[in-house]
Amino acid sequence: MTLTAPISILVFDIFGTVVDWHGSIVREVSSLYPQVDADAFALAWRAGYQPAMQRVRSGEIGFVKLDALHRGILDDILPRFGLAHLAEAERAHLNRVWHRLDAWPDSVAGLTRLKTRFTIASLSNGNIGLLTNMAKRAGLPWDCVLSAEVFRAYKPDPRTYLGVAEVFDVSPAQVMLVAAHQDDLDAARACGLATAYIERPLEFGARRVKDVSPDAANTWHARDLVHLADQLGC
Amino acid sequence: MTLTAPISILVFDIFGTVVDWHGSIVREVSSLYPQVDADAFALAWRAGYQPAMQRVRSGEIGFVKLDALHRGILDDILPRFGLAHLAEAERAHLNRVWHRLDAWPDSVAGLTRLKTRFTIASLSNGNIGLLTNMAKRAGLPWDCVLSAEVFRAYKPDPRTYLGVAEVFDVSPAQVMLVAAHQDDLDAARACGLATAYIERPLEFGARRVKDVSPDAANTWHARDLVHLADQLGC
Repeated sequence: MTLTAPISILVFDIFGTVVDWHGSIVREVSSLYPQVDADAFALAWRAGYQPAMQRVRSGEIGFVKLDALHRGILDDILPRFGLAHLAEAERAHLNRVWHRLDAWPDSVAGLTRLKTRFTIASLSNGNIGLLTNMAKRAGLPWDCVLSAEVFRAYKPDPRTYLGVAEVFDVSPAQVMLVAAHQDDLDAARACGLATAYIERPLEFGARRVKDVSPDAANTWHARDLVHLADQLGC
Repeated sequence: MTLTAPISILVFDIFGTVVDWHGSIVREVSSLYPQVDADAFALAWRAGYQPAMQRVRSGEIGFVKLDALHRGILDDILPRFGLAHLAEAERAHLNRVWHRLDAWPDSVAGLTRLKTRFTIASLSNGNIGLLTNMAKRAGLPWDCVLSAEVFRAYKPDPRTYLGVAEVFDVSPAQVMLVAAHQDDLDAARACGLATAYIERPLEFGARRVKDVSPDAANTWHARDLVHLADQLGC
């Protein structure tokens, strides 16, 4: 537990970092509802994500699972895409697309290598069931599924980052957050965690390539999870 | 979500059911402190387990991780075994023996087969870090690590059993608890879960073989986890 203790725990942001939410939703919506602009649909759904969690963070509502927040956003946007007629079973099935997201092509190989030297866990705002179903389908080899649901708080609440250190009884400096979002990494760094940025230029689709410039504040910067494993000597 | 929906989630008691706590502690204590009666030491440590959790269940103290309860019991029993002189580092190391318990010989093979048809998760009073470290060392292939720590309540509190159904958004009847302890299974059944009893006649060591008689109230009765996989057609 000294300041120089090595990093032993890697926790991973999931949506955009490990799995391709945009491409997965585009594929499923295009297949189910070919008349819909699936790219716009995916972006609209995701656009409701931060405002929905903000209602929990602000205390306006108590903690609810992301599945429920996703469902509320879905119900809101369906009329805009000509899908107001969808019945309950169709809505419930579509909402579970977040359990069926595909991994980026490097994720399973990178995680499998990182797992040989580190304890690897999710640290996502997705709920435990969502993350477990996703991992089982996509073959993500977590040592442990950690979620906002465990800490009853959504990132970037410090209770999530510090909660990981408490769970594993290590100092925050022994934990590294791996994410494709600088704001998530900034919040983790403020709690004393190490940080690794993963470039995911196509997170929002090929029509709007994301800026993936390095930030010198991060401990590591990698193209993908295999590149991170290379750099960490796994 | 009908009453006849099939079982999809298997959750496992850990200490005694999946890992051999008695044999593992005897081996480690015999090796570190050969002058100590390791069999009596293991039993004394475990004897403090239910009373320690009862302080949390009764509300006498707030929720604390099992690591902390184990440590309190350890500090209490050390003088009785001539080990009052152990320094902090030795106590901390010995307390982590619960993270280093060996699996029963059938556990990894049985879980690996069961995982092909079911979502498999721990449901233990052990804390998340303990269970994750144990799984990584022993090769237990959990889809998800669930713990009293997630639900902030110790088994047999109904919040633990019902919490599993909530996490996976299924009815209690779609969850089965697998355990070597009839009282744990009784409490799960009272919450509507299916139950599978696993014989572990040597849980308390070869000197005191445990009664492993079937109870017709359980859904399944198996010699070990491979036998359970056989019965469930995995």
